[in-house]
Amino acid sequence: MIEDSFPPLNSTFLVPFRYTVHFTKDIFSPTNHCLSEFFVSEKKEGSTKKALVVIDQGLLVHNPDLVSKVRSYFKGLDSFVQLTEDIMVIPGGEDCKNDPKVWESLVDAVDRYGIDRHSYIIAVGGGAILDLVGYVAAISHRGIRLVRIPTTVLSQNDSGVGVKNGINYQGKKNFLGSFAPPVAVFNDLLFLESLDDRDWRSGMAEAIKVALIKDKDFFLWIESNAEALRNRDLEKMSYLVHTCAKLHMDHIAKGDPFEFGSSRPLDFGHWAAHKLEYLTNFSLRHGEAVAIGMALDSEYSFRIQFLPEGDRNRILSLLKEIGFSLYHPKLSEGEKKNLYLGLQEFREHLGGKLTIMLLHGIGIAKEVHEIDLKTLSSAVDFLEENL
Amino acid sequence: MIEDSFPPLNSTFLVPFRYTVHFTKDIFSPTNHCLSEFFVSEKKEGSTKKALVVIDQGLLVHNPDLVSKVRSYFKGLDSFVQLTEDIMVIPGGEDCKNDPKVWESLVDAVDRYGIDRHSYIIAVGGGAILDLVGYVAAISHRGIRLVRIPTTVLSQNDSGVGVKNGINYQGKKNFLGSFAPPVAVFNDLLFLESLDDRDWRSGMAEAIKVALIKDKDFFLWIESNAEALRNRDLEKMSYLVHTCAKLHMDHIAKGDPFEFGSSRPLDFGHWAAHKLEYLTNFSLRHGEAVAIGMALDSEYSFRIQFLPEGDRNRILSLLKEIGFSLYHPKLSEGEKKNLYLGLQEFREHLGGKLTIMLLHGIGIAKEVHEIDLKTLSSAVDFLEENL
Ligand SMILES: NC(=O)c1ccc[n+]([C@@H]2O[C@H](COP(=O)([O-])OP(=O)(O)OC[C@H]3O[C@@H](n4cnc5c(N)ncnc54)[C@H](O)[C@@H]3O)[C@@H](O)[C@H]2O)c1
Ligand SMILES: NC(=O)c1ccc[n+]([C@@H]2O[C@H](COP(=O)([O-])OP(=O)(O)OC[C@H]3O[C@@H](n4cnc5c(N)ncnc54)[C@H](O)[C@@H]3O)[C@@H](O)[C@H]2O)c1
Ligand SMILES: [Zn+2]
Ligand SMILES: [Zn+2]
Repeated sequence: MIEDSFPPLNSTFLVPFRYTVHFTKDIFSPTNHCLSEFFVSEKKEGSTKKALVVIDQGLLVHNPDLVSKVRSYFKGLDSFVQLTEDIMVIPGGEDCKNDPKVWESLVDAVDRYGIDRHSYIIAVGGGAILDLVGYVAAISHRGIRLVRIPTTVLSQNDSGVGVKNGINYQGKKNFLGSFAPPVAVFNDLLFLESLDDRDWRSGMAEAIKVALIKDKDFFLWIESNAEALRNRDLEKMSYLVHTCAKLHMDHIAKGDPFEFGSSRPLDFGHWAAHKLEYLTNFSLRHGEAVAIGMALDSEYSFRIQFLPEGDRNRILSLLKEIGFSLYHPKLSEGEKKNLYLGLQEFREHLGGKLTIMLLHGIGIAKEVHEIDLKTLSSAVDFLEENL
Repeated sequence: MIEDSFPPLNSTFLVPFRYTVHFTKDIFSPTNHCLSEFFVSEKKEGSTKKALVVIDQGLLVHNPDLVSKVRSYFKGLDSFVQLTEDIMVIPGGEDCKNDPKVWESLVDAVDRYGIDRHSYIIAVGGGAILDLVGYVAAISHRGIRLVRIPTTVLSQNDSGVGVKNGINYQGKKNFLGSFAPPVAVFNDLLFLESLDDRDWRSGMAEAIKVALIKDKDFFLWIESNAEALRNRDLEKMSYLVHTCAKLHMDHIAKGDPFEFGSSRPLDFGHWAAHKLEYLTNFSLRHGEAVAIGMALDSEYSFRIQFLPEGDRNRILSLLKEIGFSLYHPKLSEGEKKNLYLGLQEFREHLGGKLTIMLLHGIGIAKEVHEIDLKTLSSAVDFLEENL
């Protein structure tokens, strides 16, 4: 027997995180103090901090003067926060998460401009840009202060108010990434005006999701306002974004922020969505895939007598009214083999034990650990035939 | 004026971390259950986890059968933790943190073997390997469970029991990295037998450091055992490692584990050490540079009438008795311009406000925010002339 020389030492500690998500309009207008007040509140006697701004190129089509607006905005603040010489503009969308050269150009900028742990990176753009820049901020000098300014529905109500970042690695989605909360988030409603219809719609899938699993009243509100939302009513959208962001943030703060466990209630509708995104080579937007995934899991919930028929009908109707398709041929491809494989991959991803969130009613979620493939198959067939 | 549509949302949460550092001998011996008990304690009904083992090549010189010992050890556990087909052996030392290809080969292995968030990476080696593998574990799938088996004095009493990881980027030390606690650490005393004298000695600098700023009794113990420690008494070393690891871990758990603030008391002697490491192109070991940095800051503390003369004498004597040099010509190079530059870089690194830990006595540290260059210069001259 080997004697252990000294007693083991235990380390137990809690790491505190805190950030605020602000809601505003026209954030870089000279008369808007929302962002400048944040920097004032962070001011420290005798020190000037640097800030590197990274902007989603997709914004410039509709806001051609954005870069100069940002510059002017920060002019007044430069006694305590100074922009770097260049503002970086990079093409948004999934491609920026795929190309290691884009990642490298950002890390190089951090180096070149001497952005340290007390400086800021300010990311302005859709979820893809925020994921990429957030990742760079998280790993440079073990963490630079990240300010997010999300500009899509999805990023304002879901990805941009959360704690995750990531890039793709050799085609593997989010293979590299970390959990790293921002120091502040600023949701500017006016950016949403220039989204194309698919991006406008797609982000609403996460709101319907969070309503379905957590908040019936919110579902009823979306139902009553479905037409206005589809028709791009900006004020209605601002309520949807705020409510969804709130539910999302509450869930993170009260749950398991860094996902150490394997329960993931926010993943309702997501197992099939992930597989569909891959099978369609990401030609489906995330929200479009989630809408189909939710339709499938709602229909399945109904078929195993979890979800009342009336609730199932309302869910499918709402998704359609918002403008989502509820079926994609890839669901059935190869006699549904690919879909079944998706289930298996999801099981492996969870570490061996399958956990799928289903619905017992609108606003009432329930985990199951088994899926009956025959019932699943009939749910797919129903979506194909009826929708 | 722009009206803000909705009230801001605050997110505040605490993320819990917990790990144990075990002390053992001959960890992969078939009769040693220290490591296997850990895996048993982590066992989950119905799931088999994978483990990727990465070994520091430097260990194989003295432990040529290490790879096969590891394999045999895990044979008995394979109903709930299965080693991947390959055990990876990579050259240790700083080079592994410099070469992006090594990083990439590890990320590829994570991908190839399907190591997910519920699987393990087990790193066996010196601080450099642990930093590299820890970084890969932290960013793959947003965090894979990391088990560290440190094999040098430095990694057993300091780097390997802490929460940081990192790699170098284009020659910039630790430019990329994160804060990511391990799930468990196993310090195997017997690995230390094969260290060369410089590595054996160098790691003790951190123990002297933590004694100087936090624990006079520990300093007295090191003083009484200096000769034995220099002469490679393994049992004395095991006490030094355990005590230093404990002080280090307490500091992390009770302080600011992820270093959000700018106070860094554990950095006594480190500002000059960092600069010296660069100036010598890392031909000085970290601990060797820290020993010189501590001598300098102790001498400076004495000269500004912080530290009593007797204490200063004991500190310099102990460092010499352990076998450290207390001066390096690079300290004086260019009329000490490089050293002054190091101070300025350190100030910038801290976000503008200089904070240097000095000594008021053995075991009593005190921060200052200014350094008098003339006094610093005379301290350097004293070290040059007298030691
Ligand atoms: N981190 C997380 O927790 C999390 C959660 C969900 C999704 N995501 C990620 O988010 C990404 C998707 O984000 P997204 O849906 O925001 O899309 P996106 O970032 O891919 O942007 C879509 C397109 O819209 C453009 N764009 C951005 N803002 C615009 C605006 N205001 N007006 C006009 N065009 C604009 C972009 O340039 C891009 O071409 C995916 O990479 C996904 O993996 C991350
Ligand atoms: N993460 C942190 O908090 C932290 C703190 C301090 C230092 N570090 C890092 O630690 C690294 C230095 O680590 P180190 O001092 O352990 O040295 P090292 O890892 O560079 O190893 C030195 C040499 O010893 C060999 N070696 C390792 N174990 C051996 C053994 N038991 N017998 C014989 N040879 C062995 C290695 O192959 C290497 O050649 C630096 O990169 C430094 O930046 C990290
Ligand atoms: Zn989603
Ligand atoms: Zn050190």
